[in-house]
Amino acid sequence: MGNRDRIILDGMGGDHAPAAIAEGAALASQIVENTICIVGDEKRLTDELARHKHNPKRIELVHAEEVISGDEAPVRAVRTKQRSSIVVGLNMLKNGAGGVFISAGNTGALMAGGLFILGRIQGIDRPAIASTYPILGEGVSLLVDTGANAECKPNNLLEFALMGSIYMEKVLNKRNPTVGLVNMGTEENKGTTVLKAAHALLAENRDTEGGLRFVGNIEARDIPRGAADVIVCDGYVGNVVLKLTEGLAWSIFQLIKQKFTSGLFTKVGALLLSGKLSELRGAFDYSEYGGAPILGIKGAVVKMHGSSNAKAVKNTIIKALPYMKNEVVRNIENAILNLEVTGRLE
Amino acid sequence: MGNRDRIILDGMGGDHAPAAIAEGAALASQIVENTICIVGDEKRLTDELARHKHNPKRIELVHAEEVISGDEAPVRAVRTKQRSSIVVGLNMLKNGAGGVFISAGNTGALMAGGLFILGRIQGIDRPAIASTYPILGEGVSLLVDTGANAECKPNNLLEFALMGSIYMEKVLNKRNPTVGLVNMGTEENKGTTVLKAAHALLAENRDTEGGLRFVGNIEARDIPRGAADVIVCDGYVGNVVLKLTEGLAWSIFQLIKQKFTSGLFTKVGALLLSGKLSELRGAFDYSEYGGAPILGIKGAVVKMHGSSNAKAVKNTIIKALPYMKNEVVRNIENAILNLEVTGRLE
Repeated sequence: MGNRDRIILDGMGGDHAPAAIAEGAALASQIVENTICIVGDEKRLTDELARHKHNPKRIELVHAEEVISGDEAPVRAVRTKQRSSIVVGLNMLKNGAGGVFISAGNTGALMAGGLFILGRIQGIDRPAIASTYPILGEGVSLLVDTGANAECKPNNLLEFALMGSIYMEKVLNKRNPTVGLVNMGTEENKGTTVLKAAHALLAENRDTEGGLRFVGNIEARDIPRGAADVIVCDGYVGNVVLKLTEGLAWSIFQLIKQKFTSGLFTKVGALLLSGKLSELRGAFDYSEYGGAPILGIKGAVVKMHGSSNAKAVKNTIIKALPYMKNEVVRNIENAILNLEVTGRLE
Repeated sequence: MGNRDRIILDGMGGDHAPAAIAEGAALASQIVENTICIVGDEKRLTDELARHKHNPKRIELVHAEEVISGDEAPVRAVRTKQRSSIVVGLNMLKNGAGGVFISAGNTGALMAGGLFILGRIQGIDRPAIASTYPILGEGVSLLVDTGANAECKPNNLLEFALMGSIYMEKVLNKRNPTVGLVNMGTEENKGTTVLKAAHALLAENRDTEGGLRFVGNIEARDIPRGAADVIVCDGYVGNVVLKLTEGLAWSIFQLIKQKFTSGLFTKVGALLLSGKLSELRGAFDYSEYGGAPILGIKGAVVKMHGSSNAKAVKNTIIKALPYMKNEVVRNIENAILNLEVTGRLE
């Protein structure tokens, strides 16, 4: 395998770094054939690795003596901490020392670093964070944007639709994915000025050669049922959708637990619960899913949840493999070029 | 009881009108002491009422020969259909023939009719729809706005906070309710330009005499746990929160049903389910809760869910009683005046 097959992993980002990162890498090293290159405090990472079974042939350490913490101002942090794990890792990705960079660290710093170091894909105005959203029962939708852009222009939403469709097809193996726009109703004249204009732009790009499979506006109530493969909205709404889902699922499970283990049902309930409820909870466990790609920059960068545990790290590493292989960046470049040539992008 | 204690009910609005409305009124007539005045097609309402046990002393019919349907353009409908149940009902409210108007009909028409017929409370820029949000386990929060204003200015959000706090205290009996602003993080510098400015305005009004009990930004994941009594956001986000909750709860219950009634657990599961699950579902059943008040107009107008069944109609009637009694409109007027006098409202 060549350098481009190496997985670059930020050893210092996230609430449980470096312990959970090292443990996750150790687990993954026994499964994947790629080299996992962990960037961070070499001494601490060595110590953490020593505590877990791992395949030493698959793990390499790259020392980075600085750390960008979660609450640092992103742009300043990236500019000043040149020897931080995020900046070192992104530079490695840029220089071809790996095919993907994975981090549970400061999202803003990842975004800023992605823009400064890797650069924006030509024709993309605003990169976006895309998160998988579990459809109850089966599969996932891809929600774009989930936090990078609180405010969006209509063409940003078109770009999110385009990038999301490509990622959904190339990485998540969904052929001809459908695209929906989160709105207050399904009628095309609903919502804000931006939403109306975005609907028009998306509709214009529908069903043309290489165009989007836009199904129109969707209501939030239909998101959990899988109303569309790619679900487009601004980062504020995407953040609300993702976090409300997390919070509500948690609350409902707490309530189920209370109800089914109270009174007469204590024993039977507890028995039933142990198996079935954990199956159910799996459908909402973000550690089951891969991380969130930052789409629109010239490189495969994946953001993991800040609270990622070892299992989440392992799963993100495994799920990042097709992202490296299926040249998403090049496909986005081509799609944007196609839009520009045909005059369909403002 | 005087005229001001009469409940005016739109007999023709909603997906199941007039049947569900008449049945709901029939149920309520056996409980409340107020006269319920149903506005609509007298013949059809008489027929529907005849099919259900009711207290004829508590029900009056007021004929209105026109109906504004759900998909009509609101302003035009209100202007041209002077004999519609919505316009007739709002005029009755204005003229003191009742203390509250309840409708499951066209939300936009209710809002437009409220503005034209009743008028805006002085100093309120944009009226808002406030919906109760079930906190799992106990109680409700009040979410403002849930659909009237897709786009908001900072002062609109301040007004929502103020009106919501008064409704929460006067109608839902929560003393000194807390207020939270839905944002992408809890730090005060998070979010859009509007959210940042709204945070500053809300903070400025905190802890002053008669001021708001603003707890700052809240994340969507904390809404189901009751992060604040009054939850403020624009109508687009409020709509997303409300509908996603509805859709997700439904999906989770479907999944629970599947899991607990499959395989080995069929019989035991089904038994356990019948009682416990319906208790649980009650926490999410919008028919359990009263409708949504339109705050900011000069009169007590309550919007019910379009799909309201008889039980929802009955409950909304019962829960509307304190709204009539506790002069919310006057309290909002005073609060706004107070803000204007002290220069805290732009």
